Amino acid sequence: MMRSAAGVAPGPGALFAERVASCQARIEGVLDRALLLRDPGTQRLREAMRYSALGAGKRVRPTLVYLTGESLGAPLARLDTPAAAVELIHVYSLVHDDLPAMDDDDLRRGRPTCHRAYDEATAILVGDALQALGFAVLANEPMEGIPAAVRLEMIRVLARATGTGGMAGGQAVDLAAVGQRLSVAAIEDMHRRKTGALIQCSVVLGALAAGVTGGAELSALQHFGAEIGLAFQIQDDILDVEGDPALLGKSTGADAAHLKPTYPSTAGLPAARARALELRDAAIAALAPLGKQAGALTELAHFVVSRSS
Amino acid sequence: MMRSAAGVAPGPGALFAERVASCQARIEGVLDRALLLRDPGTQRLREAMRYSALGAGKRVRPTLVYLTGESLGAPLARLDTPAAAVELIHVYSLVHDDLPAMDDDDLRRGRPTCHRAYDEATAILVGDALQALGFAVLANEPMEGIPAAVRLEMIRVLARATGTGGMAGGQAVDLAAVGQRLSVAAIEDMHRRKTGALIQCSVVLGALAAGVTGGAELSALQHFGAEIGLAFQIQDDILDVEGDPALLGKSTGADAAHLKPTYPSTAGLPAARARALELRDAAIAALAPLGKQAGALTELAHFVVSRSS
Repeated sequence: MMRSAAGVAPGPGALFAERVASCQARIEGVLDRALLLRDPGTQRLREAMRYSALGAGKRVRPTLVYLTGESLGAPLARLDTPAAAVELIHVYSLVHDDLPAMDDDDLRRGRPTCHRAYDEATAILVGDALQALGFAVLANEPMEGIPAAVRLEMIRVLARATGTGGMAGGQAVDLAAVGQRLSVAAIEDMHRRKTGALIQCSVVLGALAAGVTGGAELSALQHFGAEIGLAFQIQDDILDVEGDPALLGKSTGADAAHLKPTYPSTAGLPAARARALELRDAAIAALAPLGKQAGALTELAHFVVSRSS
Repeated sequence: MMRSAAGVAPGPGALFAERVASCQARIEGVLDRALLLRDPGTQRLREAMRYSALGAGKRVRPTLVYLTGESLGAPLARLDTPAAAVELIHVYSLVHDDLPAMDDDDLRRGRPTCHRAYDEATAILVGDALQALGFAVLANEPMEGIPAAVRLEMIRVLARATGTGGMAGGQAVDLAAVGQRLSVAAIEDMHRRKTGALIQCSVVLGALAAGVTGGAELSALQHFGAEIGLAFQIQDDILDVEGDPALLGKSTGADAAHLKPTYPSTAGLPAARARALELRDAAIAALAPLGKQAGALTELAHFVVSRSS
């Protein structure tokens, strides 16, 4: 679990790395409970859901929920529910993206992908059921002190980030882009949908859980979320070119092999690195209205573009 | 659109058939608006969503929402939102069930299935995006006079019916059952999950929209929904053996070709017919606490087991 914190230098970042590791450990327990095998009739499906969701993963989205919410004064226990919801939606998207008809990937997080470990039909159902569970968790699980109207707003935000306007739409754009030459602007638009929307959603859910439901603070966090969401994906594409497969838990060069246009393949690696840093700085600048509360999120912005896995 | 009312005899049922047809016409308009092509970036995905959701279908689930809600005094306009939500979830499940890795069907509602008309990756995303839209509609769309807490309860009910405890779990059981010999009890359990849960959910959503959020009336409707949900699936399996492909808009004999155990294949056609009628009667008996409000739902129970498409 510490692996994803490895890119953070010792010294000022060490405390932050510990905090990230503790978020990762915490969400593992929350997901484990959300995915308990209660129903013998659907055991294989539930096992495949647990296989896909537990035991690995950087947990970037739940970490964002925790760090944002805590920075704004929300108790950790109240953040477990939105943190689990975004991660379940994220894992569903990974399972479907890996399918033969999509990216046809064999390895994910250092292990066989769901359709390889089980079968294709099961992997389709795992994704479907994880999506439903993401919404179920947000509608059902305890979130002490949160009024129904705010919970409903969380579901709205999650649904928007998940559907055609966000992740699913971005994946469609991504598929259509295979073998195409895109402009840098078109690549950014695709990334903002496919990855950025759910990352931004994670920040907003953390804010909503802390009672920040509007105003300059929420706008600042939305802006922050949008910028680090795009920075995160550009760094992902950079790591796919020059990362260490052992650290990443997957093969590198996948984008090129799939003929996927990426920021580095379109603008070059130096421009990609520069754009990631520019977005990091824009994200940090957006946090100004938060004052001292911005501390952990500022560190997170640095982490996102310096990570090596 | 009238085709699905064809199984209702003229006379006392004619008014009911008109009412069903008007529900079918109404939901078509609501879905059309929910699926507007607003975003040029994801046009192909949205077109495929419209192709899958519009222009055909018996609309049993939305009709149940409308009939239940209206019987209990809810204005029609307030029922549009839950009616659209259940149908979007239903259509998503059809698109995924038809995929090559699942039932591998070429025809649906008299037209090529989504993955045949478009491609497999698009069909996976269509299902994913329709599921997200189902929850988005229920969280976002107008439902005049409904408190946030009741809307939240609707989302809970829909998520439960959609996930491992309902439809997705039922589809997993269904896949595992291929080529197996199941007991009649196991087949009923599978049907209650795969089809029954969302049909029951439709009835409950109609009740919630009418302000029936607990008590003997809600219990009665839950029981009614469970019984006609199972009756509906048994009638479906009967029609797959002896129905008219021209009326059904799909080939018959698919269950046998797929080696799927069904009620008729396990217990025989006469037993299946008898069980459907028994469930119809149990469903009608469950409506007793509703008194005169049960009228349309009683007719619907008759319709479910006498339909020819």
